[in-house]
Amino acid sequence: MPHIELPEGVPGIGSGFIFRPETAKPMRELAEVLLRGDNTLSRGERELIAAYVSNLNDCMFCQASHSSFAALQLEGGMPVVEQVKCDPASAPISDKLRALLAIAARVQQSGKLVSSEDVEAARAEGATDIEIHDTVLIAAAFSMFNRYVDGLATFTPSDPALYDEMAVEIVTNGYVRR
Amino acid sequence: MPHIELPEGVPGIGSGFIFRPETAKPMRELAEVLLRGDNTLSRGERELIAAYVSNLNDCMFCQASHSSFAALQLEGGMPVVEQVKCDPASAPISDKLRALLAIAARVQQSGKLVSSEDVEAARAEGATDIEIHDTVLIAAAFSMFNRYVDGLATFTPSDPALYDEMAVEIVTNGYVRR
Repeated sequence: MPHIELPEGVPGIGSGFIFRPETAKPMRELAEVLLRGDNTLSRGERELIAAYVSNLNDCMFCQASHSSFAALQLEGGMPVVEQVKCDPASAPISDKLRALLAIAARVQQSGKLVSSEDVEAARAEGATDIEIHDTVLIAAAFSMFNRYVDGLATFTPSDPALYDEMAVEIVTNGYVRR
Repeated sequence: MPHIELPEGVPGIGSGFIFRPETAKPMRELAEVLLRGDNTLSRGERELIAAYVSNLNDCMFCQASHSSFAALQLEGGMPVVEQVKCDPASAPISDKLRALLAIAARVQQSGKLVSSEDVEAARAEGATDIEIHDTVLIAAAFSMFNRYVDGLATFTPSDPALYDEMAVEIVTNGYVRR
């Protein structure tokens, strides 16, 4: 049961977005720029960072949805997403993405934990300043989205098919409603 | 030293905003709606929640700046802000705000920690669904802003006068740059 009177049957963050369209607008825009805007990190890679952080935060709705969004846009699909969530060190991803995931894991705990060594390691694998910036901000933003979804106790569907449907919708139309 | 090439001498989040205007825009808009938009919680009360969460996250830049922004807009000024950060239970604030701060402290740790009892306690003091929603989202948003500021290791000035100047600017002109 949600903590406040959210629209019934609407899954996860969507119910908060309908309840409060004034805050939904910038939150949707932030997701769109960060996860789908022009970038040298692919959309699949950025969704993977979002899914990874949401899994660390144990936010069921966000980790299930962004895992589906990542799987649909990433070479290797869901098996790679699952491997990254289990053990990024051995997952079949680029060493640059692995180093960026390590930064994201620090930020998930606290921004203060990101060390010069973490950043140098990412740079040594070819990460640019913008890629490092966006990784920090994706991890920070999902520290918000995850807390928002769980702090309101929003409805979390258990049927995986629903997340796959949402993935098609997001990959086709994005996060912003016009 | 910031982890990436941020504009030199620009304090805190402002340097990230200049570095990446595409993400700055929705982040500024979210702060404006949450902390300054029409609301039954005063601007001072909302800035106090932001300062309280930033203090729990030990984000020096955010806690110093939002403490100043709260102090300038709150009856009792900085002494009340300091008391809230030290011990909200004994601070001279309304019981409704005290109950909302308790919810914010849960969200700062994890959204999952917000209990029905926390929400009922706030409701018993007269908190509305929108006030509870906005408290959860302010605490969640500062879980993002704090991680962004510290995850990039942005410049944190130590001169308190600078935060007071920023407070006048924000109270006068808000968070959005047009």
